[in-house]
Amino acid sequence: MINYDAFLSRAGASMQESAIRQMGTVLAKSKDMISFAPGYPAEDQFPWPPLTEIARELLTGSDGSVLQYGPTRGYRPLREATIALMAQRGIKSDVDRVVITTGSQQGLDLVARVLLDPGDVALMELPSYTGAITAFRNVGASLVGVRQDADGLDFDDLERTWAGLIAAGRRVKLLYLVPNFQNPTGLLLGAAKRTQALEWAERRDVLVVEDDPYRDLYFGDASTADLTRPIAAGDDPGRVVYLSSFSKTLAPGFRVGWLSAPPAIAGKIEFAKQAGDLCTSVLDQRIVHEAWKRGLIDKHLPALRAHYQNKCDTMTSAIARHMPGRVRWTAPRGGFFLWAALTGGFTSQDVMPHAQGRGVIFVNGSAFFVDGSGGEYMRLSFSAPSPARIEEGIARLGAAIDAAAVVHDPK
Amino acid sequence: MINYDAFLSRAGASMQESAIRQMGTVLAKSKDMISFAPGYPAEDQFPWPPLTEIARELLTGSDGSVLQYGPTRGYRPLREATIALMAQRGIKSDVDRVVITTGSQQGLDLVARVLLDPGDVALMELPSYTGAITAFRNVGASLVGVRQDADGLDFDDLERTWAGLIAAGRRVKLLYLVPNFQNPTGLLLGAAKRTQALEWAERRDVLVVEDDPYRDLYFGDASTADLTRPIAAGDDPGRVVYLSSFSKTLAPGFRVGWLSAPPAIAGKIEFAKQAGDLCTSVLDQRIVHEAWKRGLIDKHLPALRAHYQNKCDTMTSAIARHMPGRVRWTAPRGGFFLWAALTGGFTSQDVMPHAQGRGVIFVNGSAFFVDGSGGEYMRLSFSAPSPARIEEGIARLGAAIDAAAVVHDPK
Repeated sequence: MINYDAFLSRAGASMQESAIRQMGTVLAKSKDMISFAPGYPAEDQFPWPPLTEIARELLTGSDGSVLQYGPTRGYRPLREATIALMAQRGIKSDVDRVVITTGSQQGLDLVARVLLDPGDVALMELPSYTGAITAFRNVGASLVGVRQDADGLDFDDLERTWAGLIAAGRRVKLLYLVPNFQNPTGLLLGAAKRTQALEWAERRDVLVVEDDPYRDLYFGDASTADLTRPIAAGDDPGRVVYLSSFSKTLAPGFRVGWLSAPPAIAGKIEFAKQAGDLCTSVLDQRIVHEAWKRGLIDKHLPALRAHYQNKCDTMTSAIARHMPGRVRWTAPRGGFFLWAALTGGFTSQDVMPHAQGRGVIFVNGSAFFVDGSGGEYMRLSFSAPSPARIEEGIARLGAAIDAAAVVHDPK
Repeated sequence: MINYDAFLSRAGASMQESAIRQMGTVLAKSKDMISFAPGYPAEDQFPWPPLTEIARELLTGSDGSVLQYGPTRGYRPLREATIALMAQRGIKSDVDRVVITTGSQQGLDLVARVLLDPGDVALMELPSYTGAITAFRNVGASLVGVRQDADGLDFDDLERTWAGLIAAGRRVKLLYLVPNFQNPTGLLLGAAKRTQALEWAERRDVLVVEDDPYRDLYFGDASTADLTRPIAAGDDPGRVVYLSSFSKTLAPGFRVGWLSAPPAIAGKIEFAKQAGDLCTSVLDQRIVHEAWKRGLIDKHLPALRAHYQNKCDTMTSAIARHMPGRVRWTAPRGGFFLWAALTGGFTSQDVMPHAQGRGVIFVNGSAFFVDGSGGEYMRLSFSAPSPARIEEGIARLGAAIDAAAVVHDPK
């Protein structure tokens, strides 16, 4: 018998399955399971007929490069498209800053590898996106949480946390933020706090890693759009590594995201990507570029926003009906997630077996907290199921919470 | 001014551009440049019409999962296809061992991250594939070279090297081998040495990482096929992590490779991949699976072998005519590469400026040696250019070598 544990790197030994992907495995086992777990986009919203046409045109063979190895930085016209996209969001970038990534997740992984040594500190919102948590942990970084309030990051706690770390001789390299419809809370970082984040980073010589996959999926009126201006839009000093993706606005089966970073960092990220996968799927990049060029993405956004807003409304009204007094939440103004806190003194882990037994799953909130707290929260994704399934799933979840409450307090 | 260097991790600070990709950048600058540099497959050999048909069928929208996030381990039927493919090569695998990777390069990167700590030793053939060298270096591993002779790895040197490392208190984790039509030498590891490698690994408690992208591209008769039996085919003890790819037999613009590893290691690789890119392009996986299922790959292999053999023959006969006495080489029996040693006492770096000036590029052999040697070698890839361009490119390269010889010894 070979002792494989003895062959693992320290990183390898400590790697674990992500809580979200774990739920995906549960889901795959049952057809009738209603999933509020992974933040999957709605498949019926993908623009299938135009994508078929684009694929047909690209695969005639007249341009062999469509299926050849491509540049590590990405297909040049797609890089230029992301620059135009970022300009719409108020961000000035250029081709020396942009790297196409195999989904935004690869961007996070590359940022981690290029910036973080074991023991370096990454400051993370409490709660924060698990994919970033795992990518940063995999390089041995120390993840330290900073509290949030109703409009996001608590700057008093940020400053206090930073000062404590510095006093302890720690190196704080970056602050990771998801300012728009945060995963998992759905919160918008307040407009004033966006400026403040940049000023703070400059004053404390820290980089900001801004993860912005949901920006275009705001609900309601144009004022919401105004409130989604990325931190990177004000980044004259060059403090921000900005990441975004086509996964939520076109389709995630294409693994195509991008990042924009100061050129010195973008260059290192390119080298890390060379050894990581040589390049992102060239066919995916070409299809995404054509979809963008033909206006498929921009034209479809209003309908997509209405689609997700409708699902969000369905979920919040179902919760109000099926879980009266059982949970607290703030209505999201965009994105894919509703973040609900159980009010009964028991945790989402207590609810999970009852939920699975009734055919509904979600992600335990504690997975998003680097300090081990958050047991009372559930992340409920409303993006994938139909409104009818959302209604039914919330009814099941309400019954599961009732059952957990009886176990917890059986008087 | 921000000092970005101060933000880089040790890995990030040491990352450099790969020699092969660098040549790709040179190539992109000139239309008339003939490239023997990157090992690009021939685009006119990609099965364009059937791929168009497959894409059309997949993108109707009747199966939404084609553009959705997929499982990190890969599309299950594709994983099963790779098991069948490996069975054709004599390898027993199963779904607990297989992970679909974003090209074989990602497989190397994941292996590095899961197995190698800074300072751990990876034993590498002299010369060896640069993509593996870079992936292993990026996690801080120590790469130690082992000599090769005409049928590959020199086991006396392997044992001597290993003993020296152990005496020095080093941890030797793995031996990296490309047994079939090695990149860059084109060599086949001898049949007896394949068994010997496994026995040695078992005796010395080392893992074998076997990288096998070229196996199906053998030239000549069936006896060559017999000689390509992977080391993994004899791996009853569970010593081998086996990597392969669809990049050379179908197309590399789909970034689809796979690996088969002992389940304990495959599980960790899956977790590393979760944080790395969540999953490989789902559309790519589905197209590759359909191409395999319809027999497109198997049916096309004889023509593909003939295609590359013809190009190889064109190159070797052109070299014999245009560089008489200037280079030594062994005729490859498969793969994409001819490995040529300059005999004039000067290096390939001395030749490079003359070559670029005349419109031809290659990769300096020294890029493939972890010990800094190999200055006299050139890696010449014959896979992409047409026979006429190969002829013309070798004529240009012959003139470049003549010019370098005059500079070197101007009597």
